[in-house]
Amino acid sequence: MPPRKATATKKRAPAKKAPARRRPVRRRPTTVVGVDLGGTKVQAVAVHGDEVTASARRSTPAGGPEAVVAAVAEVIGELGDPKAVAAVGVGAPGAIEAGTGVVQRAPNLEGFDHAVPFGALLSEALGGVSVAVDNDVNVAALAEHCLGAGVGSDDLLAVFVGTGVGGGLVLGGEVRRGPAGVAGEIGHVIVKDGGRRCGCGGRGHLEAYAGRAGMERTARKRAKDGAKTKLVKLAGAGRMKSSVFAEALHDGDELAQELVDEAAQALGAALASAVALVDLDRVVLGGGLGDRLGQHFIDAVQKATHERLFVPDAPFTIVPAALGDLAGARGAALLARER
Amino acid sequence: MPPRKATATKKRAPAKKAPARRRPVRRRPTTVVGVDLGGTKVQAVAVHGDEVTASARRSTPAGGPEAVVAAVAEVIGELGDPKAVAAVGVGAPGAIEAGTGVVQRAPNLEGFDHAVPFGALLSEALGGVSVAVDNDVNVAALAEHCLGAGVGSDDLLAVFVGTGVGGGLVLGGEVRRGPAGVAGEIGHVIVKDGGRRCGCGGRGHLEAYAGRAGMERTARKRAKDGAKTKLVKLAGAGRMKSSVFAEALHDGDELAQELVDEAAQALGAALASAVALVDLDRVVLGGGLGDRLGQHFIDAVQKATHERLFVPDAPFTIVPAALGDLAGARGAALLARER
Repeated sequence: MPPRKATATKKRAPAKKAPARRRPVRRRPTTVVGVDLGGTKVQAVAVHGDEVTASARRSTPAGGPEAVVAAVAEVIGELGDPKAVAAVGVGAPGAIEAGTGVVQRAPNLEGFDHAVPFGALLSEALGGVSVAVDNDVNVAALAEHCLGAGVGSDDLLAVFVGTGVGGGLVLGGEVRRGPAGVAGEIGHVIVKDGGRRCGCGGRGHLEAYAGRAGMERTARKRAKDGAKTKLVKLAGAGRMKSSVFAEALHDGDELAQELVDEAAQALGAALASAVALVDLDRVVLGGGLGDRLGQHFIDAVQKATHERLFVPDAPFTIVPAALGDLAGARGAALLARER
Repeated sequence: MPPRKATATKKRAPAKKAPARRRPVRRRPTTVVGVDLGGTKVQAVAVHGDEVTASARRSTPAGGPEAVVAAVAEVIGELGDPKAVAAVGVGAPGAIEAGTGVVQRAPNLEGFDHAVPFGALLSEALGGVSVAVDNDVNVAALAEHCLGAGVGSDDLLAVFVGTGVGGGLVLGGEVRRGPAGVAGEIGHVIVKDGGRRCGCGGRGHLEAYAGRAGMERTARKRAKDGAKTKLVKLAGAGRMKSSVFAEALHDGDELAQELVDEAAQALGAALASAVALVDLDRVVLGGGLGDRLGQHFIDAVQKATHERLFVPDAPFTIVPAALGDLAGARGAALLARER
């Protein structure tokens, strides 16, 4: 909890006649900060009411939890007067223990291969400000639900198609966390049992077909086996970015088209399964690859899903995410306010 | 709402000295009735407190909604004094409009191919008693959650493997219905995109592999194509019942074993997907085929699911359903009490 100012919580005394002058009232801080802690960057926003009043970003440091805590505190410091901050929310990658601020495991952050009481450490570094922590995809889903493309739906899945495929599930207006805190993992829903190997070791998961990394693995294998494609050349020595797929697609590259079609079909299967199981009226589709491939891709996913819906006349739409890169930080700010 | 007796809701007056005699208090009825309305039978129970005090059953009549309403009212009459009934709950097959008692479509009931205000019709036939209606599988899941194998878990999926594969989802202690009222359809989750044809017309659904009807279709096709099996002979002219699969399995029939293995693998894939998406700590497995194949089958499904779990160390178990044939009627009674 933020430190309460006594003057702000006292009941008002009955108005006296013609007070010569009012004492200045020290207001309780009303700005909240949201932090999106990623494997490569830390993005922070200060939010006052519904407005983002400041934004700052830096690279995520190597060196373990202490270095990361210091970097996050530093970025928050760049947003303005720390005394004006009522609460901080953080979206972090990996498994988060519900309500405790403990990051149990975050493979994308150096030194987070064991449980780290990140919320407590950051709160200490900030002089005692309340810190709430949740999974990065969950807070991004919360932001799309409350402020973005999910406004108006209380039962939606936000799907972020990037290197992997992440998801955040909103049911009855609340982000679903689940008893183990791992709900929403649409990327690891099976679309073809026994099928393509996923980065997690499983088989036939959505992420193996629709995640950038899975698509890159398939593209490199197919190219090695003799498929004619620009993808490998365009990627060069580096990783096969979303922009590479978009460019090859634009140039009529057949393998790129095939892989993107497979991604849309796999998304259609996973989303139709999700709708059958939990009954959703909307899917918000975003993430690096989703954003880069644009409306054509959204349309292809929408078609693939509709072809597979068990109740085809139930109201259901797929819409592009609205908040882009700031979804995580803005959702983290909502989390801070929620707690 | 049941008619309230004024004497039961008035606040007590302060005790007077030595009242010669108390007036007899007319009690509000406290018995609720649960009805499981199936395609072939109507099963009703009277419940007082936690006890089933009476049970009755008859065949579901042909002849459309009026005949069905009359039959249900008749079965309820067999349970005892209708004046003692405070409320009635009904589990009906098909799509039910949330909270209204309207059966929108129930392909297994003659004359229910359009919306039928079943709750209102039954209430009228019973002289105005409150009637609540929900999907039959949802109420069976509610019963297993509150009284059966689901006690102690607030996040579970009840799966009933019979002619088809039905499911009821309990999240945070509440049966999930969803915005279109069709949540829980685990039978139509895709386990192999583009795979075996399902009875609903879709492809690769769990029900195509693990439902009795789907297994029968495959068995007859395979036998026609030359596979050696007792299944067709055991079934004779009739349908290939669960007991036929159990008997063939017991006799070491290879095709029966193969089909049951496929069913377990498909269940493993669908359940692992469900756990990834919504995070569950328990699955309750029942239904005609599930019950008939017994613990061996449960063990096979448990193994197939665990091999596919995304977070394999999360607490998760599969247990046999506990309420058998009465799950639907008992759940309907709980529904009546809930409303």
